[in-house]
Formats: sequence, C-alpha cells, structure tokens
Amino acid sequence: MDTGMKDFCFGVDVGGTTVKIGLFRIDGQLVDSFEIPTRKEEKGRYVLGDIADALTKKMQEKDIEKERVAGVGIGVPGPVLDDGTVNICVNIGWGVINVANELGALTGLPVKVGNDATVAALGEMWQGGGKGHDSMVLFTLGTGVGGGIILNGKPVNGSHGAGGEIGHIPVVMDETETCTCGKKGCLEQVASATGIVKEAKKILAKSGEPSALRTYENLSAKDIFDEAKTGDKLAQEAVEILGKYLGIAMADVAGVVDPEVFVIGGGVSKAGQYLIDAIEKNYRHYVFHASRDAKITLATLGNDAGMYGAAKLVIEK
Amino acid sequence: MDTGMKDFCFGVDVGGTTVKIGLFRIDGQLVDSFEIPTRKEEKGRYVLGDIADALTKKMQEKDIEKERVAGVGIGVPGPVLDDGTVNICVNIGWGVINVANELGALTGLPVKVGNDATVAALGEMWQGGGKGHDSMVLFTLGTGVGGGIILNGKPVNGSHGAGGEIGHIPVVMDETETCTCGKKGCLEQVASATGIVKEAKKILAKSGEPSALRTYENLSAKDIFDEAKTGDKLAQEAVEILGKYLGIAMADVAGVVDPEVFVIGGGVSKAGQYLIDAIEKNYRHYVFHASRDAKITLATLGNDAGMYGAAKLVIEK
Repeated sequence: MDTGMKDFCFGVDVGGTTVKIGLFRIDGQLVDSFEIPTRKEEKGRYVLGDIADALTKKMQEKDIEKERVAGVGIGVPGPVLDDGTVNICVNIGWGVINVANELGALTGLPVKVGNDATVAALGEMWQGGGKGHDSMVLFTLGTGVGGGIILNGKPVNGSHGAGGEIGHIPVVMDETETCTCGKKGCLEQVASATGIVKEAKKILAKSGEPSALRTYENLSAKDIFDEAKTGDKLAQEAVEILGKYLGIAMADVAGVVDPEVFVIGGGVSKAGQYLIDAIEKNYRHYVFHASRDAKITLATLGNDAGMYGAAKLVIEK
Repeated sequence: MDTGMKDFCFGVDVGGTTVKIGLFRIDGQLVDSFEIPTRKEEKGRYVLGDIADALTKKMQEKDIEKERVAGVGIGVPGPVLDDGTVNICVNIGWGVINVANELGALTGLPVKVGNDATVAALGEMWQGGGKGHDSMVLFTLGTGVGGGIILNGKPVNGSHGAGGEIGHIPVVMDETETCTCGKKGCLEQVASATGIVKEAKKILAKSGEPSALRTYENLSAKDIFDEAKTGDKLAQEAVEILGKYLGIAMADVAGVVDPEVFVIGGGVSKAGQYLIDAIEKNYRHYVFHASRDAKITLATLGNDAGMYGAAKLVIEK
C-alpha cells in the first residue's frame, strides 16, 4: 500500500461487545482512541456502517482530509483469508463477508483485514512485547487460548484462515472432557483462565491436603496464581500443569516456525514473571535444542494490541 | 534474483555420501543430472570446491556460458540462516560457514542456500506431490523424521535455522527412551523407519499372539507395512501407532501454519496409500475443524526432491 503523502491511518479492533478504534500517525504514534458499541442485531449487519460513520466523524473532528489517510486496518474475531474475506464470525453474527470490499466501499479508503488474534500479535510486535523482532508468536491466555504468528513481519493467516489457532492443538492425550471446539485434549482446555480453574478443582477434589483455594466461592485464575505465589502447594500444582502444557505447545510451535520470541498476553498473563517462569522451564525442557534460546516475554499493550496491530496492517511495507 | 536473459540454473543437494547435481532450464525442465562423492575428510573442506569444479565442467561440456546461468541453489543437511550461513553440518563435518559467499566466490555465480529438508519441500511443491499449491508442509519419514514448511511459496527457515524441525516436536508424553536429540517423546521416535520397528518389537514382546513379524531376522519398516497390508494384527498395531502420532503432529502443525497440503515422503512413504489412510483418519480426528480438509498426499520426486528444490531457490520470484 502506498503510504507516500499519507500522515494517518486507522486501526479498528472488532470485539463481541465494543469496537475499539485508534487514529494513528504513520510512524506508529497513537493520536486518539475511542470505542463504539458492536451492534450485533440482525446478524451484525450494522457493524461496518457504524464503523464507517465513526471514522468519518473522527476525520471531520480532527480536520483530516481523506487524502491524508493511508487506510483502515481491521481485526475481526474469525478466520480471515488473504483477500479480506471473513469466514463466519460467530461472536458478531456474520456469515461469509468480504470486509475489505464492504468497508472499503463505505469509507472510500483502502482496507486491510486480519484475524483479531493475529492482528494483536502484529500490534505486540510493532509497539509491544515483541518490539524489535520480526518473527514472533503470541499466546493469548484468556477465557480461551488464542494465538498469532508473525514471520518476517507478516501475519500467517493460513490457507483456511486458521493460522495460529494454537488454542486447539492437541496436547493432553488423556483428556476426558470435550473442548468447545468438539475435540478432546486441546491446549485451551488446560491453559486458559477457564482451564486452570477446572484443573485446580480436579486437584482439590482428589487431594486431602489443605489449601487456601478451598475457601474461594468463585475460584478464578487470578486466585490460583495469587495463592501459588504465596506458597499454596495445590495452587502451585495447578500452575505447574498450565506451565507444562504451554511449554509443550510452544515447543511444538518452535518445531514448525522457530520464532525469535514468544509473547504471552491475555488476562492470565497478569500473573507476570511467575507465569513466564512456569512456562519457560518446561519450554526449555521440551524444545529442540536449536530453538532453546527463544525469548519468552509478557505482552505490554493489553486490550490495545488489536487496535495497534490493525493499524500496522495498513502501514506494513 | 534477476533471471532475465538467463536460461539455466543448477540445483545441488549435498548429502552425507554423495552430492546430487541437476542442470535445469529456468522453466523447471531437468536437462541433466549427475552425482559426485561428498569428500568429508578434513572437516569437509573440499566439498564446495568439488561442487564448483563439477559445475564448471558441466557448463563446458554443455557449451553454456556463465552469463546464461541464473545461479546455483544448494541444499545442505544442517540449519541455514536467511543470509546463507550454515550453522554446523554434522554429516559433512562443517562448522559455521557461509555457503552462499564461499560457493559464490568459487563459481562466480549467485548462490542461494537452504536446509535440505526445507529445500526438498520446495521441490515437491514445485514439481512433485504439492504441485499447484503454495502453502505446504513436507514430512520426510526415513531413518529419522525431517520436515519442510513452505508458506506463500517461500521456505520457512526459522530464526535459528530450525523451521520445520518437526521430527523433534514432543508428542509421546509417556516415552521412556531418549531420542538422538537428547529429549524424550519426539515424533521421530515413533514415526521414522527406526521408530516403527522399535514400536513393533515392543508390541511383539508384550503380546502372546502369533505374528508373521516374528519370523523376520532383521525386521524393517517395509516388512511391517507389507504384513499389515496382508492382515497381520500386530503389524497393524504398529502402523496404528505411527499413524496416530503423525496425525497428532500434523494437527499441531496445522494449528500453527494451516497449510493447503501435507506431502509425505522418505523411505517409509513407499508404503503408499495404506500409510496415507493410517495418517489421515487420525489427522481428521485431532485437527481443528477449519483445517480438517487439508490434502494429504504422497511425495513423487523421491531422492530428486532436494535437487529440484535447490534449483527453485534460484528461480523463485
């Protein structure tokens, strides 16, 4: 995309509840950011129109002519093909829709589309935990486990839009419960916020040992990490399981794309260096020696990663 | 690399015993191929000189001026960085050496270097089992398990030269023996020719059932597949194990790069469609639904894949 004479671009991160929008200078500086609600009624048919209106208003407010805007990058929660086609977004209600063409027609601006997790990875590489690298993998540990792969500065979308679907790689061979995806043994089942709570409850049920975790009415991933840090043995066991399977999954990923850096984001990553330590020792153990020194670090952009990465889609060389 | 006015290129595949060399037309047609021995004495210091001499002689023989040769692509059995540096080739005796610069100086031709397994993948994509695709993963099942990843037509070398090192991704969590790489539970331990023989022997030792496999003095992977095809239950069990772990490993790979096609090569792949069937049902079971329809097929270039892929390194757009 030609960014000559262009000063600005937009980064748009479409979530199930709100759309986050950032106005950026081409050099990466965030000028302004705001949110609009995601109108999911009638299969999400108003979402792109709402975004186009919001962008137009923001340009008027800031007195920026369309000619000075390089384009709009947009991250969406579903599989995205290289041509900008989005292949069903359950959270928004969309079926198959070419977001690049539709939002392009609505705004008169060039539009580039990416999967939200992949775009978040691009954001972390550009201005976050992966800054200074051009080959990185983001693991997003939230309610589920998402991921994004960036190689030589480019997102890997995959041929079915499923590049970086690392939450659903099979790692737990003896898993008896079924994942939301219908399979058994996915990484997400043990390494998400939901997964670590489920594993902790299993440990508590099996063990006769005392544990502070037994006093929580609605046990959360944060509670487990907090108690593990203060020495609670059963909480530490739950963290161990998460660390083990994340270490294995990262070793799997390294055997495929061998990145420079792994960045860990999502709500669970608020556990900080304690989480990194739990993952890192397992990664070093399970990975092929050539990739052993890959860096493992925390994401730094939080919920803004998608907005940053979406903007970067437009200004990538 | 500018290939205007250039009619030919060389593809060189350096193995531990012989170097295979192909002279190609730029359109992919093989004009001539031959082999020279790999002189490993004195840490392989004569290998590149021998190759340069062979190329010069071949150009003289065919009356081809250097100006008409686009360049030399070369695949080597070790990790290769993007700048052409080879980081220790145990089989040749090389330490750290920039093959692109050295062979370039010796031949006066542009040289591009790739890892042998990755280069074989490129060859299979160009003129073999992956023809017509630009996103594919090669699994080479031989004495060990090698692999190569091609995304958007480009080899994935990895940031430590370990892209596509799929033989050493951890898949067998209860493995007790140690892999040649020093870890436990690598794919190679169960899915190589050596691995399936080891697993079959374990099955034979554990089972009291009769099996034709008990009559072989030096049991080979081929024997196991042959007997499995004729209905031998214990042989079929051994094939099941190989199929299961290859299916899991391919599901892991799909969760990272989501390729269009998986191509299966190496000596074990001579088992043909029977092998593909054993892998495919497991892959479909373990993989995330979006990648379920990826094609799984046999390699077709055999030992020439590396030579083809090396040539393709030079004429890639």
